[in-house]
Amino acid sequence: MATINRNYLKLPGSYLFSTIGRKVKEYGEQNPEADIIRLGIGDVTRPLAPSIIQALHSAVEEMSKEESFKGYAPDLGYEFLRDVIAKKDYQERGCQIQADEIFVSDGAKSDCGNIQEIFGVENKIAVCDPVYPVYVDSNVMAGRTGEYDVASQRFYGVIYMPCTEENGFMPELPKEVPDLIYLCFPNNPTGAVMKKADLQRWVDYAREHKAVILYDSAYEAYISEEDVPHSIYECEGARECAIEFRSFSKTAGFTGLRLGYTVVPKDLLVEGVALHSLWARRHGTKFNGAPYIVQKAGEAVYSLAGRKEVEEQIAYYMGNAKIILEGLQAAGFEASGGKNAPYIWLKTPNCMTSWEFFDMLLEKANVVGTPGSGFGPHGEHYFRLTAFGSRENTIRAMERFKSL
Amino acid sequence: MATINRNYLKLPGSYLFSTIGRKVKEYGEQNPEADIIRLGIGDVTRPLAPSIIQALHSAVEEMSKEESFKGYAPDLGYEFLRDVIAKKDYQERGCQIQADEIFVSDGAKSDCGNIQEIFGVENKIAVCDPVYPVYVDSNVMAGRTGEYDVASQRFYGVIYMPCTEENGFMPELPKEVPDLIYLCFPNNPTGAVMKKADLQRWVDYAREHKAVILYDSAYEAYISEEDVPHSIYECEGARECAIEFRSFSKTAGFTGLRLGYTVVPKDLLVEGVALHSLWARRHGTKFNGAPYIVQKAGEAVYSLAGRKEVEEQIAYYMGNAKIILEGLQAAGFEASGGKNAPYIWLKTPNCMTSWEFFDMLLEKANVVGTPGSGFGPHGEHYFRLTAFGSRENTIRAMERFKSL
Repeated sequence: MATINRNYLKLPGSYLFSTIGRKVKEYGEQNPEADIIRLGIGDVTRPLAPSIIQALHSAVEEMSKEESFKGYAPDLGYEFLRDVIAKKDYQERGCQIQADEIFVSDGAKSDCGNIQEIFGVENKIAVCDPVYPVYVDSNVMAGRTGEYDVASQRFYGVIYMPCTEENGFMPELPKEVPDLIYLCFPNNPTGAVMKKADLQRWVDYAREHKAVILYDSAYEAYISEEDVPHSIYECEGARECAIEFRSFSKTAGFTGLRLGYTVVPKDLLVEGVALHSLWARRHGTKFNGAPYIVQKAGEAVYSLAGRKEVEEQIAYYMGNAKIILEGLQAAGFEASGGKNAPYIWLKTPNCMTSWEFFDMLLEKANVVGTPGSGFGPHGEHYFRLTAFGSRENTIRAMERFKSL
Repeated sequence: MATINRNYLKLPGSYLFSTIGRKVKEYGEQNPEADIIRLGIGDVTRPLAPSIIQALHSAVEEMSKEESFKGYAPDLGYEFLRDVIAKKDYQERGCQIQADEIFVSDGAKSDCGNIQEIFGVENKIAVCDPVYPVYVDSNVMAGRTGEYDVASQRFYGVIYMPCTEENGFMPELPKEVPDLIYLCFPNNPTGAVMKKADLQRWVDYAREHKAVILYDSAYEAYISEEDVPHSIYECEGARECAIEFRSFSKTAGFTGLRLGYTVVPKDLLVEGVALHSLWARRHGTKFNGAPYIVQKAGEAVYSLAGRKEVEEQIAYYMGNAKIILEGLQAAGFEASGGKNAPYIWLKTPNCMTSWEFFDMLLEKANVVGTPGSGFGPHGEHYFRLTAFGSRENTIRAMERFKSL
């Protein structure tokens, strides 16, 4: 008799963004005249840049001819893409990462969700609270946590690191030592960033305790301030303790195109085994490469013209972030983030819960955001807005906030 | 201290096709003048059909404009694609499958590898021997098997169902009752097919024992004979016991484009829980949708023109299959398959092992095939050739076989 993976039953509800999607869909059906502005899910709205479009068309043409048709991609990604990533994202920034340490994938969400598979079920994870739900949920599914405790809104067996107003939304080194540490900076959802010296402390801590840091750097392109590391490999010793996730989704508008990559340095040994070889086995067995045409689009992001175009897009979104941050502050809200990240983290007024504020905002202003409590209990009474809307919608949303 | 998933260490070597790729690459480097013909990995060689190319260009154009740009895809795939799949692949064949039972993905390999996650670790799996390695390897990684036994070339705790010359490469209902049964027909690697009445016996067996059949139907488009089911849902009761995997890779040449889907009927309950909800949770948490442009390409496969074009491609490959099958038989080999599948399964001459034959064929004929033993111990002394080469290369490969 077949049995299910009962760990799935520990998950309290559906995936956060699926719930939001359903709620908004229902509201829209009941209020067909409502002019809904979506600043909830972190989805981009600018069209793909001209260089990327050109690369796509050109790659599609290649697929139409026998002599240039491409079937299965190489396991770890095409060399043309891995080479340019290693050079532009790492070596030119002084990080010693080689092309064969880069695994191209269909996006950072898949990799963040799947990476836990190469670790033993007995590993204890540490996550920020609030946190991107995929880190926790994927570990729950794998049985690496206990049950969900409704009262505390936490899973037993997970080390939560509160990120609060008091600590500037920066986690403290945990007293109980974890085995796997998920960090994401610039942070989703708070928009906070970690300075290089602070990140170095985490690297030192991980090496001291033989823990592995799973570093989500999906938003590095939004960093505008000095002394904020774009990669964990800017820190000394990180090659021996850290895996890094990167995404083309927010950097170049690939949310609908799907491309990301994961860096597993060959120096990273756990129990004497190279994690690189385990991840290569996982990748080779359960994944069949990102589409050739999408990898060519990814390559175009690194061309001179492509880079300039995506930088303009990022500047556009960061212009939105400024409008939101300043608009919220002018409307009397406490808000932070938005300077090195496309996310603005605001405190709900009058001690409203995050979901109360979500409902109120949807109904009164027809604006969709993300309830902070969806990211963890310390996200309660907070709310995330994203800078990924159009300029016009962003301005209109802020006007609606004023009259709340 | 972090620990690794030690189940990975049970895997005896690298993924089969990675090993072949490495061997061929090394041979090519040492023999740069060699004119290597690849009939090993099941990768297509015909360019994408005109309707698909057109759909891709048109979707790329949509991505270039603000008003038609697409970000994240819906969790389970775009409705336009799921609707046409449900209608054309199922309802028009008399199978009661609805659009919301279809989960669009980046390919059947990912889904076949990931599906085991929604089942308990205590489930015992049954696989054909020989078998597509992903089914076994993904269960080894999850800890659903014992160690690998070098002598028998088998994992402890797995029910292997021999498919031999004696039983016409058809597995028998296992005496020890499994919980999860992997079946793939038309079969990879043997090219054998199961008649409808035979498949019905498996469905009845699964329902009787509350087992779940994981049915890989990636090659259904190659079926040419009557009375061979294209879908397991042609069998009565399959909605209550079977999950089906389909791929656009071989059907429409999408190996480099990446698109597939999995059907999880809502009637399929295990321990009273709908597997549909578990797979939806998995999909929503660890996957972010197939690219919009690729889903539009998938839709084009179902257009009148698209269907005609891909049928011509399949006829082309099946023409190759005929050439291989007849060529091998004329050259004195025992061979089967190739009538309802793009694979031909041949017996190695003179009791050579599969890898001995691989090396001999590579060195003497510069032809690459797949060693049968890579698919399991009962694949030893067999060898798989695929019909996916060009016509010219297929003919040339057969000439080289003649003079072996």
